[in-house]
Amino acid sequence: MSKPRLTAFHWVPAPFQGQVRDLPVRWALEEAGLEYDERLIEGEAHKAPAYRALHPFGKVPVYEDAGIVLFESGAIVLHIAETHGVLLPREPAARGHAKAWLIAALNSVDPDIIALGDIDHFAANESWAKTGRPQIVEHLTGRLRDIAAQLERRDFLAGEFSVADIMMIAVLRGLRHTTLVSEIPFLREYRDRCESRPAFQRALAAQLRPFVRAESQQRSI
Amino acid sequence: MSKPRLTAFHWVPAPFQGQVRDLPVRWALEEAGLEYDERLIEGEAHKAPAYRALHPFGKVPVYEDAGIVLFESGAIVLHIAETHGVLLPREPAARGHAKAWLIAALNSVDPDIIALGDIDHFAANESWAKTGRPQIVEHLTGRLRDIAAQLERRDFLAGEFSVADIMMIAVLRGLRHTTLVSEIPFLREYRDRCESRPAFQRALAAQLRPFVRAESQQRSI
Repeated sequence: MSKPRLTAFHWVPAPFQGQVRDLPVRWALEEAGLEYDERLIEGEAHKAPAYRALHPFGKVPVYEDAGIVLFESGAIVLHIAETHGVLLPREPAARGHAKAWLIAALNSVDPDIIALGDIDHFAANESWAKTGRPQIVEHLTGRLRDIAAQLERRDFLAGEFSVADIMMIAVLRGLRHTTLVSEIPFLREYRDRCESRPAFQRALAAQLRPFVRAESQQRSI
Repeated sequence: MSKPRLTAFHWVPAPFQGQVRDLPVRWALEEAGLEYDERLIEGEAHKAPAYRALHPFGKVPVYEDAGIVLFESGAIVLHIAETHGVLLPREPAARGHAKAWLIAALNSVDPDIIALGDIDHFAANESWAKTGRPQIVEHLTGRLRDIAAQLERRDFLAGEFSVADIMMIAVLRGLRHTTLVSEIPFLREYRDRCESRPAFQRALAAQLRPFVRAESQQRSI
């Protein structure tokens, strides 16, 4: 059986290293014990029509397996879970919850985090950003507290570890440059519990490896 | 067999009428020919602990069916499709694409639309909003053109009509106060093609009905 192929970037700027969305896909594959091939795209290759045919927005990741080509990390993680019978509770109510939390990470948590990242990484010194930032932080903090409240009674969002946790942690990593997660004890402990999993550590190392290599090649030129 | 129950708001402010996220759930149910019960929450009921136990963020929709309680419209639409064998292509590659586009609507398109809505509905006259807005519009327009490019060759995102179109149209409705969709012919035609479906029209009417009733009761006090 041929291995699935994951497409990721050859290099990204420092704030995004350890945060690009091939990370949750690598993590799901590691949790499932599945080997995969890696294709790294360089320079402007992600803007070329050939790549756009695989990913309509010219982003990463792209996942190819057995003739199926997928984009959007949330869809890929769900596909891996359903295809290989992993990372989803068997009990229907908990299984539904796992999928709901995966979507919640992407649609009810990530938009604020994207908005905050846009300000902090690209517009930190602009006055419009300084004025707009507190409103985003206030709304986001409410959401983070709502998530933490769920974690007072259980270790993982759907009870057992699942796709929901992979996606939520991947999304929350967009706050690493802030203390917003660390300030909320149940959320900080949850993050540490998830990120200390060996499969996460392997996935993170695999994402970072080409960046380190690219930077050392750059230095040696 | 008991009917599923959908929870929606009794009333929302004018800009959000026809846009609240119970709409895609109603639409999926109408496309599938499924009857459902409706529960409308009033006042501050969505902030009460009893409701928070169903929806961690105190939002709508909540969907209850056969002991399963779901939140997040994207997860609910996907659940309806998978449970009832509707709104997803049978061919694996197209089925994967339908799910990828559903997630894309929620995570690669909606964040810009949420940011734009926050500015236009809540901060239109503030100078930070005026300065920040063009950057959001520029990024969003790129995404909308990418979507339109897909629709040059097919009527619906995954070939046949699917959950992807329900979610994408639900998300794009957040731009009704702008001309951003109308300015792009393939996207405008796609929107009209989807929104002219009888199931969409029934779903929209069902969402609006309580708002009209609430407003006429208000006037008669």
